[in-house]
Amino acid sequence: MAEYFPTVKKIKFEGPDTRNPLSFKHYNPKEKVLGKPMAEHFRFAVSYWHTFKGLGQDPFGLPTMIRSYDVADVDQMMEKTMEAAFEFMSKLGVGYWCFHDSDVAPEGADIHESRARLDKVVKQAKKLQNDTGIKLLWGTCNLFSHRRFMSGAATNPDPAIFAYAGAKVKKALEVTKYLGGEGYTFWGGREGYETLLNTDMGRELDHLARFLHMAVDYKKQIKFKGQFYIEPKPKEPTKHQYDFDAASCHAFLLKYGLDKHLKLNLEANHCTLAGHSFLHELEYASANGILGSVDANRGDELLGWDTDQFPTNIYETTMAMYTILKMGGFTTGGLNFDAKIRRQSIDPQDLFHAHIGAMDAFARGLKGAAKMHKDGAFAKHLKQRYAGWDTAFGKKIESGKATFDDMEAYTLKNGEPQPKSGQQEYLENVLNEYIV
Amino acid sequence: MAEYFPTVKKIKFEGPDTRNPLSFKHYNPKEKVLGKPMAEHFRFAVSYWHTFKGLGQDPFGLPTMIRSYDVADVDQMMEKTMEAAFEFMSKLGVGYWCFHDSDVAPEGADIHESRARLDKVVKQAKKLQNDTGIKLLWGTCNLFSHRRFMSGAATNPDPAIFAYAGAKVKKALEVTKYLGGEGYTFWGGREGYETLLNTDMGRELDHLARFLHMAVDYKKQIKFKGQFYIEPKPKEPTKHQYDFDAASCHAFLLKYGLDKHLKLNLEANHCTLAGHSFLHELEYASANGILGSVDANRGDELLGWDTDQFPTNIYETTMAMYTILKMGGFTTGGLNFDAKIRRQSIDPQDLFHAHIGAMDAFARGLKGAAKMHKDGAFAKHLKQRYAGWDTAFGKKIESGKATFDDMEAYTLKNGEPQPKSGQQEYLENVLNEYIV
Amino acid sequence: MAEYFPTVKKIKFEGPDTRNPLSFKHYNPKEKVLGKPMAEHFRFAVSYWHTFKGLGQDPFGLPTMIRSYDVADVDQMMEKTMEAAFEFMSKLGVGYWCFHDSDVAPEGADIHESRARLDKVVKQAKKLQNDTGIKLLWGTCNLFSHRRFMSGAATNPDPAIFAYAGAKVKKALEVTKYLGGEGYTFWGGREGYETLLNTDMGRELDHLARFLHMAVDYKKQIKFKGQFYIEPKPKEPTKHQYDFDAASCHAFLLKYGLDKHLKLNLEANHCTLAGHSFLHELEYASANGILGSVDANRGDELLGWDTDQFPTNIYETTMAMYTILKMGGFTTGGLNFDAKIRRQSIDPQDLFHAHIGAMDAFARGLKGAAKMHKDGAFAKHLKQRYAGWDTAFGKKIESGKATFDDMEAYTLKNGEPQPKSGQQEYLENVLNEYIV
Amino acid sequence: MAEYFPTVKKIKFEGPDTRNPLSFKHYNPKEKVLGKPMAEHFRFAVSYWHTFKGLGQDPFGLPTMIRSYDVADVDQMMEKTMEAAFEFMSKLGVGYWCFHDSDVAPEGADIHESRARLDKVVKQAKKLQNDTGIKLLWGTCNLFSHRRFMSGAATNPDPAIFAYAGAKVKKALEVTKYLGGEGYTFWGGREGYETLLNTDMGRELDHLARFLHMAVDYKKQIKFKGQFYIEPKPKEPTKHQYDFDAASCHAFLLKYGLDKHLKLNLEANHCTLAGHSFLHELEYASANGILGSVDANRGDELLGWDTDQFPTNIYETTMAMYTILKMGGFTTGGLNFDAKIRRQSIDPQDLFHAHIGAMDAFARGLKGAAKMHKDGAFAKHLKQRYAGWDTAFGKKIESGKATFDDMEAYTLKNGEPQPKSGQQEYLENVLNEYIV
Repeated sequence: MAEYFPTVKKIKFEGPDTRNPLSFKHYNPKEKVLGKPMAEHFRFAVSYWHTFKGLGQDPFGLPTMIRSYDVADVDQMMEKTMEAAFEFMSKLGVGYWCFHDSDVAPEGADIHESRARLDKVVKQAKKLQNDTGIKLLWGTCNLFSHRRFMSGAATNPDPAIFAYAGAKVKKALEVTKYLGGEGYTFWGGREGYETLLNTDMGRELDHLARFLHMAVDYKKQIKFKGQFYIEPKPKEPTKHQYDFDAASCHAFLLKYGLDKHLKLNLEANHCTLAGHSFLHELEYASANGILGSVDANRGDELLGWDTDQFPTNIYETTMAMYTILKMGGFTTGGLNFDAKIRRQSIDPQDLFHAHIGAMDAFARGLKGAAKMHKDGAFAKHLKQRYAGWDTAFGKKIESGKATFDDMEAYTLKNGEPQPKSGQQEYLENVLNEYIV
Repeated sequence: MAEYFPTVKKIKFEGPDTRNPLSFKHYNPKEKVLGKPMAEHFRFAVSYWHTFKGLGQDPFGLPTMIRSYDVADVDQMMEKTMEAAFEFMSKLGVGYWCFHDSDVAPEGADIHESRARLDKVVKQAKKLQNDTGIKLLWGTCNLFSHRRFMSGAATNPDPAIFAYAGAKVKKALEVTKYLGGEGYTFWGGREGYETLLNTDMGRELDHLARFLHMAVDYKKQIKFKGQFYIEPKPKEPTKHQYDFDAASCHAFLLKYGLDKHLKLNLEANHCTLAGHSFLHELEYASANGILGSVDANRGDELLGWDTDQFPTNIYETTMAMYTILKMGGFTTGGLNFDAKIRRQSIDPQDLFHAHIGAMDAFARGLKGAAKMHKDGAFAKHLKQRYAGWDTAFGKKIESGKATFDDMEAYTLKNGEPQPKSGQQEYLENVLNEYIV
Repeated sequence: MAEYFPTVKKIKFEGPDTRNPLSFKHYNPKEKVLGKPMAEHFRFAVSYWHTFKGLGQDPFGLPTMIRSYDVADVDQMMEKTMEAAFEFMSKLGVGYWCFHDSDVAPEGADIHESRARLDKVVKQAKKLQNDTGIKLLWGTCNLFSHRRFMSGAATNPDPAIFAYAGAKVKKALEVTKYLGGEGYTFWGGREGYETLLNTDMGRELDHLARFLHMAVDYKKQIKFKGQFYIEPKPKEPTKHQYDFDAASCHAFLLKYGLDKHLKLNLEANHCTLAGHSFLHELEYASANGILGSVDANRGDELLGWDTDQFPTNIYETTMAMYTILKMGGFTTGGLNFDAKIRRQSIDPQDLFHAHIGAMDAFARGLKGAAKMHKDGAFAKHLKQRYAGWDTAFGKKIESGKATFDDMEAYTLKNGEPQPKSGQQEYLENVLNEYIV
Repeated sequence: MAEYFPTVKKIKFEGPDTRNPLSFKHYNPKEKVLGKPMAEHFRFAVSYWHTFKGLGQDPFGLPTMIRSYDVADVDQMMEKTMEAAFEFMSKLGVGYWCFHDSDVAPEGADIHESRARLDKVVKQAKKLQNDTGIKLLWGTCNLFSHRRFMSGAATNPDPAIFAYAGAKVKKALEVTKYLGGEGYTFWGGREGYETLLNTDMGRELDHLARFLHMAVDYKKQIKFKGQFYIEPKPKEPTKHQYDFDAASCHAFLLKYGLDKHLKLNLEANHCTLAGHSFLHELEYASANGILGSVDANRGDELLGWDTDQFPTNIYETTMAMYTILKMGGFTTGGLNFDAKIRRQSIDPQDLFHAHIGAMDAFARGLKGAAKMHKDGAFAKHLKQRYAGWDTAFGKKIESGKATFDDMEAYTLKNGEPQPKSGQQEYLENVLNEYIV
């Protein structure tokens, strides 16, 4: 087996004072934080599509990156790319990966050839998983690149294309099960619209729900035990994506009785594209019991498209880990680096720098968050701020026993209430002391 | 009774060739469109807060507008403003108005004085309603201007403030019933947060639901028959408003079992602030059976705040009326001009120009939409585009009887489906022919 | 010569009542408006890159459009595409086209092959120009697709790449001259940065200015008489493009003494991406004497990327034509449809619908604008609003003879000035009467 | 003299381990960094308008903050507020303040009363300056709050209002000189437009230039030695502000020959509202020699208005200080906290928390930036990246001696250049190691 990253050795933890950029300065996988090894807190995964298949093309330019495994012969390319992927992940020291069917096996001349390619490469992947101990965090299916899906997959105006998507997801579920995947993600690639002039929104949403119910049924049928995720994104590629944000997914799941079957896979950059902070979406999903997994990346808030940058902002990693700690940590989910190196970062080593920086940023975030957690830095303040709700009067309201008559009586008796400072600036100063 | 707009007479329909700016060129209230008088299609309402209480202040400047009814003595100011309002609405020829409690009666030294003022002015309003035939489209309650509500009303960390809000809404519901209001709107003024560092989102959402359930219960108790509306807005005044958009309101209503009791009052400018087109939100609400009423205004898509401009864009009025026609027209709802004249439009006549232009723009929109409707311009195209779903195979999927096994069998048998053009450019050209 | 659009005949003006979608309803090229044929007002051009080379690929998907001229053999493809282009433009009835070197001749294995391809195809183009009477509005050079330009062309950190760009532009200028091009456009494809961490902004701007000075010198050297344009765009593909908007281009031209040599080519969608209205940028450029030509398209103001939709909004076409009329019409410039059909619009006929709709929208815009012009609708109002500046006192200020002492004296003498209504709502109503 | 902040003592540096929130953890004014005391690096100023005059009002709400110095009698209020301001600034330990004329002296019934009030209060201020050693960083004039300025000041359609603005600025310049101000800032409050339908942009820009030339002349006349600044802001209060961003100000200054007389005062939140990063604007201004002073605050990139939050983001303070160090530090300028506490932060102590947090954040930023500077962390990398420009070939181009013929010859000889990685991810990891 060839070596594809010969200039890079296994990445090690060397601590903050090292001068070696190809080492971890903060991420120490076995170091325990709040009693659990760092690696288990994060459950880091590498995205096959960006890291091994993304070659720097953009809407205004051709690929910029030249890779030794990207050979002309499709069969060899598939095999070599898979080898390179496991070499990379082993050297990086992550425990998980994620992929779409078409990432590992480009579509062939027809569905038969596509499936034959997929079967071959997942067999190779299974062996490499066994050899390395690297596991599949979740599988997924590409329902957006081929021209047949240009008007959506499950929401396509043509049921023949809905059917094609169903056949493709069926196979992807089988493959995910075969590889021991711990989950399966539905990202609504082109489930949305370009113009309402040619769209029956209600009917399309009904079809999307039917599709997911079929998936839920098939999961039972094949006894796949992984968690299903739906992934919000507001726009891009389509003008409007139905799974706009956590709340719109929540409405959809509730309306169609799917809330027991799917959780959310939240991507940071999708959150900001929807006009929310990443933290907002994490808190919303957590508060509603539907936070499942995270696509860890970063957007550029001045740009209106999905930049999918590697997450390096310590404010964001700190607050994300704080929310994840509050909900008790991941169960089936993890932090998948759905992130790509910049088009100008053409060296293979840039892939390592990108992942190392992100893992270190999360390690710093976890340390700060764990300290917040131990200190009760914000929890104590919160308890005090809402203390009125823990009194008899507050509890009466919360329990559903109070009426507007009670509210009026209380107010007429007690007069003008006294507002209290929200202390935002003080709390922001406190937060800064946890940026480590 | 003094005359407050002495230079303006009753606004009449004079047709498109008139040179009189103080006339309707397109809006002819009794003219029938699709068998119904224009006035009944629109159910136009004037907003008391903007039109009579807005005086041009903004975050960087003091009031610019000087009004004869805005006198120093509060009691006289209340009375004169109400007189001026009914004079204005009569001259304009609208059938409805909307107001917050604090618009017609500024808060007094304590809740007793506030209520006394309100009781007095609504008595005057009732008489003026009877005299003019103008009706109340919906009432509402200001839960955001006073400092006590700075951290929210129903979502305040202090239950004493929740109670104050309850007492205030209780009274507002009574007043709305007294005036024969056809609805009541809940706009979540400051129900949201400035920073997640001091916020317990889950608990606050539970409180908001409790508050609305109390309102539902009190509505039954007093036998108020009007429709309840919740009004989405994504941000402003707070950084994040819980009622972000139609979908997040939908999720909230479904989760807390409130979907039977509240519909949406959609404001155009709030839609665009949330990253959606006005039409999107109308279609979403309509598709989910929760479209109730509309705050007709317009934002500036290059500005990030609620500009609340008068609606004059004929594309928007055409498509809005098309969607409203498709759902069968308004029942309890209507088009409330939640819009304000620009700060530099300081003449009383500017108020007339603003409303006339908006009513004319909706008249043009209705005429185009009605023609679309009669021609089946888009409906025929839509039927054809989704025709596959009306075949046996499509119906099997829609009815919930098909499985992924069926999808696979169909696909293996039928091979590659053929995508069809979405014809967006053609349809946009068709639309332009309905811009009249 | 094969026929590539056999189902479409020459597009004719049939008037607003026709039912034929493949006809002009409003655009009648020879019809005179304000004494000049419509065709001369607009000087419409077709963009080779979008219309003939764009096949529906996007960041999430492969091409969707299958064209008979897009054959595998490069030489044949070049030739057939050029034939198809002139067939299309002839049938459409436009007078101009625009292209990048790489659109008509894909880069070869090295610069020699690239140039040989280009020489061959421009010879064919010259013949087709002569046969059809279609002229070149402007030429340009692709300095952004190839990986060598990933970090910019004139602003590349490596002078060897600057040199390559220079060699390419030199050739493109020669070709433009050979084809009788009436202008040449510099769009700063990747002249900008992804991160300031690796960027020397001042040095890069100096290099960009050097590059343009070389172009100015070479233009003189070869006696090319066409107008040079620089085209603002704020972002995409890079995070920040140096030619952000009209004002930043203006600053750059002034600072480096280039303002005599370049005018602006303004693209509507680039304007809105920069946070400006299209009209703002037109007015800014016109007020500063640097408005040269227009890339006529439309963005989606809710999306943060360049959607390059065909211009169909009659408000925009009306106001754009009003500004262009005010400045006396185009001289060397024109309206180039730098616009692409949607990815789902896969039929060749969709290309016709798109262009027809845009040309009709501009025809309606021109008619409305000409009427405004004749009526003096806004001009009279403007004259009155600024009348104070035509008094002796106003003129003294404008002439530079007044001082702060004069201002103080005037104010102390005259006291508080009286603000006058800006009448925005009235003027917006007036505008609506010109939307025809 | 009363004490207005009795619960707060002089704020001291106590180091990072203190538990006292009313102390500096990082800012130690006399500690030397790169040989200069921290205080001199920053030249921190407090903004009178936000800190002492902002009481929590917003477009949807009344004031929330109750201050002991905000008494009903105007004369007393002015005097007490000034006393409170100097008490606050002394306890905080800043060296500078900034104010508008109307902040310290609300406009009276006419210009005479306004001036009399101003004269009185600046006399008091001069004494307090002498007593405390606190100096005036810059003065400015409010040309946007009063209704007379609703359509602009220097760009008003009425020259009488231009004159009023001139009289007001004349006085403000005199007052600034009297107080020993080190600069004077022109923020174009309402110099812009709401709609182009009533605006003559070219004429208004000419008037603005005339106004600034008058100011330049008057400055000479009275021998005021302070630096003039113009402050970019893209929108708010008006739809479009002429001083949109650094580049548009630059174009304006160049066109009208004002570039020798004015530098920029850059506000962080204005930068992001314009679609730029704060760092971008700093670098642009610095590269063009027009960076003068900084309004240190922070916006919320998900909100479309000026939130004016206190700067606490260490990434931003680090990079800002790095750029300021690169240009050699401030001369006349400084860091003015043009920032306001949140509407819910109603306690007087919140004012201290806000300023302390910001000063600590800048101290951390300075330390990181100084370390970068010493290590040459980015400078070395930059030198290497642009090394080609330091060769003979690069120098020939930079010196203006090379032509397109040379570029072609070089390229034909040297063939395809080799692009090099931009290493963005690596550099972002390096940056994270300087976040201290």
